[in-house]
Amino acid sequence: MKTLSKIIGSIIIVSTLLHCAGDKDTAGDAGHEQSIFPKGQLGPATNFTGNAYNFELVSDDSTYNTLVGNVYFETSARSNWHVHPSGQILIVLDGEGYHQLEGQPKQTMRKGDVIKCPPNVRHWHGATENSSLTQMYILPKTENGIVTWLEAVTDEQYKSTH
Amino acid sequence: MKTLSKIIGSIIIVSTLLHCAGDKDTAGDAGHEQSIFPKGQLGPATNFTGNAYNFELVSDDSTYNTLVGNVYFETSARSNWHVHPSGQILIVLDGEGYHQLEGQPKQTMRKGDVIKCPPNVRHWHGATENSSLTQMYILPKTENGIVTWLEAVTDEQYKSTH
Repeated sequence: MKTLSKIIGSIIIVSTLLHCAGDKDTAGDAGHEQSIFPKGQLGPATNFTGNAYNFELVSDDSTYNTLVGNVYFETSARSNWHVHPSGQILIVLDGEGYHQLEGQPKQTMRKGDVIKCPPNVRHWHGATENSSLTQMYILPKTENGIVTWLEAVTDEQYKSTH
Repeated sequence: MKTLSKIIGSIIIVSTLLHCAGDKDTAGDAGHEQSIFPKGQLGPATNFTGNAYNFELVSDDSTYNTLVGNVYFETSARSNWHVHPSGQILIVLDGEGYHQLEGQPKQTMRKGDVIKCPPNVRHWHGATENSSLTQMYILPKTENGIVTWLEAVTDEQYKSTH
C-alpha cells in the first residue's frame, strides 16, 4: 500500500501542476484581450526608438481644442525629445515607464501615475527596459499647436540614472 | 485493478477541481486589486443618484486649464442632469454605462468608448442596471467654468429606451 500511496500522490501532483499551468496561460491571454483600447498605428522611426503604437481617442477640433490618445510602448521603446506649445498630461494605464524633462533626472512612472510636462519644455517618455508601457496623453489648447519633434534619446540618456 | 483505477481517477478529478477553483478566486481578487486608480470620494447625494466615487487626476490650473478625473459608478448609479460651459469628454475604462444629451435617445457606452458632450448641452451619465462603470472625464477650457448641476435623472428617464 505504501507504493500505491506514492503512485497516487505523484499522479495528483503532476496532474494539478499540468492543469494549473494551463490555467495560468489562459489568464495571461485573457488579460491581453482585455486591453482598453486597440493597439493602434506604429509610430514612425523618425520620432521613436523601438516600437510605439498610437491610437487616437479624440482628434483635434475647434470646440474642445484637446487632442487625446493612447500609446503602447514595447519594452525599451521611447519617444524622441519633443516639445508641446501648451504642455502635455500623461496618464499611465498599465506597465512601467520613464519620462524626463530636460535638465531634470529621469523619473519612473507606473500604472495610475499622472505626469505634467509643462509648455515648451523639452521632454521624452517611454517604456522601461523590463516592461511595456500603456500611456494616455492629453494635449490641451491645441490652438497653439501640437508638437515639435526633436532628436532621438540616446542609449546613454535612456540608461542614465541621474 | 479496476477499482484502483476508479479511485485514482476520482482523486485526480477532485484534486484538480479544488486546486483550480482556488486559482480562480485568487485571479478574481488580483483583478480587483489591479484597478488603475483609487476608488475616490463619494459624490454628494445632491448631484448623484446612487453611489458614484470621484478621484481627481488633474486639478484645474491656469497652465493647462484642463480638469481630469475618474468616476466609479456603482450599478444603477448616475449623475444628475448637468452642463459644462466648454463641454466634456468621457472615456470608458471599464464596465458599461449610459449617457444622454437632452433631446436625444439614451446611449449605451462600453469599455474603450469615447463620448463628447458639447458645451452647454444638458446631459447625464452613469452605470447600467447590470454593471458598474469606470469612466474618466476631461473638462477642457476651464477658464470658462467647470459645471452647473441641475435636477436628478428620474427613474423614468433612466429606464427610457427612446
